[in-house]
Amino acid sequence: MHSNTLKQPIITLTSDFGLKDEYVGMLKGVLLSHCLSPQIIDVTHSIQPQDILSAAIVIGRSYHYFPEGTVHMVVIDPGVGSQRSILALKADNHFFIAPNNGVLSPLLTKDRISAIFSVENSELFLPNVSNTFHGRDIIAPVAAKIASGLQLAEVGPALTLDHCLCISLPKAKLSAGTITGKIIAIDNFGNLQTSITKTNLANYSSRSNLIISLNTYTIKGVNHFYGEREPGEIMALLDSRNHLEIAISGGNAASILNSKVGDTVIISYQ
Amino acid sequence: MHSNTLKQPIITLTSDFGLKDEYVGMLKGVLLSHCLSPQIIDVTHSIQPQDILSAAIVIGRSYHYFPEGTVHMVVIDPGVGSQRSILALKADNHFFIAPNNGVLSPLLTKDRISAIFSVENSELFLPNVSNTFHGRDIIAPVAAKIASGLQLAEVGPALTLDHCLCISLPKAKLSAGTITGKIIAIDNFGNLQTSITKTNLANYSSRSNLIISLNTYTIKGVNHFYGEREPGEIMALLDSRNHLEIAISGGNAASILNSKVGDTVIISYQ
Amino acid sequence: MHSNTLKQPIITLTSDFGLKDEYVGMLKGVLLSHCLSPQIIDVTHSIQPQDILSAAIVIGRSYHYFPEGTVHMVVIDPGVGSQRSILALKADNHFFIAPNNGVLSPLLTKDRISAIFSVENSELFLPNVSNTFHGRDIIAPVAAKIASGLQLAEVGPALTLDHCLCISLPKAKLSAGTITGKIIAIDNFGNLQTSITKTNLANYSSRSNLIISLNTYTIKGVNHFYGEREPGEIMALLDSRNHLEIAISGGNAASILNSKVGDTVIISYQ
Repeated sequence: MHSNTLKQPIITLTSDFGLKDEYVGMLKGVLLSHCLSPQIIDVTHSIQPQDILSAAIVIGRSYHYFPEGTVHMVVIDPGVGSQRSILALKADNHFFIAPNNGVLSPLLTKDRISAIFSVENSELFLPNVSNTFHGRDIIAPVAAKIASGLQLAEVGPALTLDHCLCISLPKAKLSAGTITGKIIAIDNFGNLQTSITKTNLANYSSRSNLIISLNTYTIKGVNHFYGEREPGEIMALLDSRNHLEIAISGGNAASILNSKVGDTVIISYQ
Repeated sequence: MHSNTLKQPIITLTSDFGLKDEYVGMLKGVLLSHCLSPQIIDVTHSIQPQDILSAAIVIGRSYHYFPEGTVHMVVIDPGVGSQRSILALKADNHFFIAPNNGVLSPLLTKDRISAIFSVENSELFLPNVSNTFHGRDIIAPVAAKIASGLQLAEVGPALTLDHCLCISLPKAKLSAGTITGKIIAIDNFGNLQTSITKTNLANYSSRSNLIISLNTYTIKGVNHFYGEREPGEIMALLDSRNHLEIAISGGNAASILNSKVGDTVIISYQ
Repeated sequence: MHSNTLKQPIITLTSDFGLKDEYVGMLKGVLLSHCLSPQIIDVTHSIQPQDILSAAIVIGRSYHYFPEGTVHMVVIDPGVGSQRSILALKADNHFFIAPNNGVLSPLLTKDRISAIFSVENSELFLPNVSNTFHGRDIIAPVAAKIASGLQLAEVGPALTLDHCLCISLPKAKLSAGTITGKIIAIDNFGNLQTSITKTNLANYSSRSNLIISLNTYTIKGVNHFYGEREPGEIMALLDSRNHLEIAISGGNAASILNSKVGDTVIISYQ
């Protein structure tokens, strides 16, 4: 177990709090009360309320862009106030703290995890712990102290992977000649991210002969960048996370194609 | 009068600017031009335009989560450009700067206030003060200098509480056997915060016999946390600010109950 | 060429990413991986997708509120992945890095520019550059290194203004007795910013005799601040950027007047 060795502590926040209320501000006040001069970075607070799966996807593909030693708080917590536990763990040389509800699933593999603890040491919490905002009252002060160098083992008893609730992340299904995936996220540009990865496509000798079907739409071939198609054309390409994305060059695919998370995408080979 | 003694200056922002425009960014540029290495924290910029009461509620329940010595800017300023004054004050060992329009009302009590000044020293302002954005041109540079250690008395003449515009914050009314309150805020989760506090409920021997009425809905008893009710059930509980909240377990109470700020909530005892 | 001499590096972000996705968070992770203890400030991420003109207007009127030496990233990049170049330049003693698509047009004048380089040195990039997110993979690490003191000339070959794509910013047209402008932006308050500037109005001896026409509405005179008119009245005034603004005192002009970007505004003299 090594403690945080960053020259300036870094703490990231991922939540479903939105930015309308004062919740995120309060939480940052708690962080600043328990950690000297941290960098506090919002990954996003726009996870849909209680959408554990989306938050798991978001943290899984974001954390490794931060320096090792960063402390990542993930506060999607429909079970707040109940007996669900809170995990503090080290994985890939990053620290994570979140409710034990599956939101850290992308980290919960033997090759990534080096230590897991249950956050139970109430001396580290705010003096008055509410039943509805453990993000502020428990997770934030503990995260701040970990970022300040607290040894993980100080937060509570050690756990193993068996103690951690893990949810399955969407994966494409491969069968003879076809790949079946789903739309798993829609971004600010209306681009449709699928569960189909670059690895899934590796078996095909040529991407230009792939046929991608989404609802009543059919796309031939996989492009490299948006500008390869004329404005308004539907297209497929590999996105910045190496997932297959369906987009409209210069337009909003989600609204033009009337597509939503969960829609099926099928790839076949011509 | 003590000047700021934080190791790193902290400045918080509460406004009705939204995040769509460049206003908040400009204002932070001004802060960075007049203060070395501050922590600048957004409490929220999503106060509805000119909603002084909501901003007063937000800052009143947020500031104490920050370390003492923090400088809080509250920029809800429908009177910008007119002769309304700007207050810089110290309360509960925090600093506040805001238009004198009631937005600092939760701080304006004898037991909290230790000093109040009128911001008039134009040497502290930006060289060209506009008539429409005193947040950027006056409040930000003065806040930055206070955060850097400027004595409050340097900003202008001393005032007393009598000079400060104060608005009344919503309070529940107690009469024989009933408590009457209102919905005062709706959060990102659709939870309905009422003006009824934990203290208001203290007279009742058992919370499980309370009957809470909102429009055509009736709730029996006050729960401790969301998970105590089945998903979709309407419920009441004490929120993280010790106010009574009406929620739907796992759902959005505001939209499902079609409730809005100002709706009446009545508590009686069975 | 002088390198950055700020005591704490400052990096600003202007983009069309929105705050819903993890894109902005990822990008800040990259900045923190390549620059020690920067101030990272969001100007805005709410530029409409691919709206190069609006982003150019926003950065042009925001940058000078930051200290000299600040590094400004502007990531509106419809041509990402194509052969469009990326510019790193110094103007008005600030640094800018953005795709060469016109988004830096307000800086691209002989009196402002002191150096321009094409960002081509791939040793400065992330190891794996995607085709869809050069903001994260190229612009962020290069910006972080410039903020850390990297000489601009290290990023790639020098360019001249002739190499830079420049778009024309909206300007009012002056003819005998009238000024014709357009609505160029609508802010969070519904205030309508026009392309007509304080300078355009300088020829008129009295602003109180000006007649401002927008669609079917007519306003007489230019006020100094919102409170000069009764709540609900339509009015014109000079905004905090010295542009003529049409507003409704205490209300939302855009929705009440049903006005949008591009609408014509005509000023005549009574």
